[in-house]
Amino acid sequence: MNGKNGKLYGVGLGPGDPSLMTVRAVAVIAEADVIAYHSARHGRSIARSIAAEHIRADHIEERLVYPLTVETTDHPGGYQGAMDEFYAEASARLAAHLDAGRTVAVLAEGDPLFYGSYMHMHKRLVDRYDTEVIPGVTSVSAAAARLGTPLAEGEEVLTILPGTLPEEELTARLAATDVAVVMKLGRTFPKVRRALESSGRLGEARYVERATMSGERIAELADVDAESVPYFSVAVLPSQVDVSGPCGSRAR
Amino acid sequence: MNGKNGKLYGVGLGPGDPSLMTVRAVAVIAEADVIAYHSARHGRSIARSIAAEHIRADHIEERLVYPLTVETTDHPGGYQGAMDEFYAEASARLAAHLDAGRTVAVLAEGDPLFYGSYMHMHKRLVDRYDTEVIPGVTSVSAAAARLGTPLAEGEEVLTILPGTLPEEELTARLAATDVAVVMKLGRTFPKVRRALESSGRLGEARYVERATMSGERIAELADVDAESVPYFSVAVLPSQVDVSGPCGSRAR
Repeated sequence: MNGKNGKLYGVGLGPGDPSLMTVRAVAVIAEADVIAYHSARHGRSIARSIAAEHIRADHIEERLVYPLTVETTDHPGGYQGAMDEFYAEASARLAAHLDAGRTVAVLAEGDPLFYGSYMHMHKRLVDRYDTEVIPGVTSVSAAAARLGTPLAEGEEVLTILPGTLPEEELTARLAATDVAVVMKLGRTFPKVRRALESSGRLGEARYVERATMSGERIAELADVDAESVPYFSVAVLPSQVDVSGPCGSRAR
Repeated sequence: MNGKNGKLYGVGLGPGDPSLMTVRAVAVIAEADVIAYHSARHGRSIARSIAAEHIRADHIEERLVYPLTVETTDHPGGYQGAMDEFYAEASARLAAHLDAGRTVAVLAEGDPLFYGSYMHMHKRLVDRYDTEVIPGVTSVSAAAARLGTPLAEGEEVLTILPGTLPEEELTARLAATDVAVVMKLGRTFPKVRRALESSGRLGEARYVERATMSGERIAELADVDAESVPYFSVAVLPSQVDVSGPCGSRAR
């Protein structure tokens, strides 16, 4: 790594409430030359909105705009080809800043290394540049906090499941774990709901949408209308350990 | 809930580096009347040390001192009886402050609802008092950040396993997941290492001790001397998704 190159930061911003940014995330943004963030084609970036009060006029902003929002494309390599090209172009733009000695902070909702888009930049740049990841509060921790219920304790096994998994696998894994969080709902919601029902866990399942953000919604998952579910929502099967039970034992 | 009662906060402090506290955690501590924290019998509290720079002379401090550090006791109810009595007494001390209208901040390492000791206070007080949990950065996110490697992405399943589980269960669950973190090492380390070996995952396993704290240590788990492993360490089987592979696919 060349000492004249800038440093790359992956900055976890937490789940949405700006006050759930870490002290360190605020400091890194303050000292960065370039603030980069992914955004949808229509220009909205949730990451930028979380960090907005810390972004100054003299920051260079790099918007990394996704080429498409659905899995249809004219790219000869299909969806994957279009995404690979986007990541290559975006990381080249960040590399140009780093080569010029600028510090680059890539904003990441939640935690940068936990199912986040930052990782695509990280993997393409970490071997060439000095890199540091600032961990953040995940949407999983935020959902448990807003539900006000223990997520996992004692000897409980916690399984994090992307809602994009096949229904059969979701069902089997939900049936086999003590505690679970299903991420990335939205269009996957009807499938996830069926998997919860098939695994016998629907009655326990809570639903948290936009935890700690404006428009937050909390409900029994069984009561949620599938049409109303955005991507930024999670299903939670909370801790089964009862207050009156032995410490660390499992109800299941 | 009586409007004259104080409010109870469970305050996540993050993994150890004080700068990984959230802005909100700092604000809640600043406004609290009482700062409570668990500590070992010899008086050290990691939680207090993380928050130390924010604790003032005019804060009332409540040390909740565990009655014992090993599972041997003279209590007629055995270990569990002694712990239940401790939790009942500790929550009664916090309740007295809340009844007197004082705001109580219970400090919690990592995230309060993620395998933490705060939950024992929460469950005993949440029905009687206004309660809010401030989520924190977990040791899991901190370990991935310090390893500088993606924890989970795309369709990967992430399993969080307490090292206190039986060896057979650890082995089966390690073999069946894409990505895993084993918490609560220390005395459980030799068993966890055997489970990693039996499940064929030892070669992937990384070891992170005291992530983001002074004395941090990172190693290949296979190289770690069991005698040297403290409780505040984790085993990580990181993401298997390759940079050159298709987005969101799984290598396993």
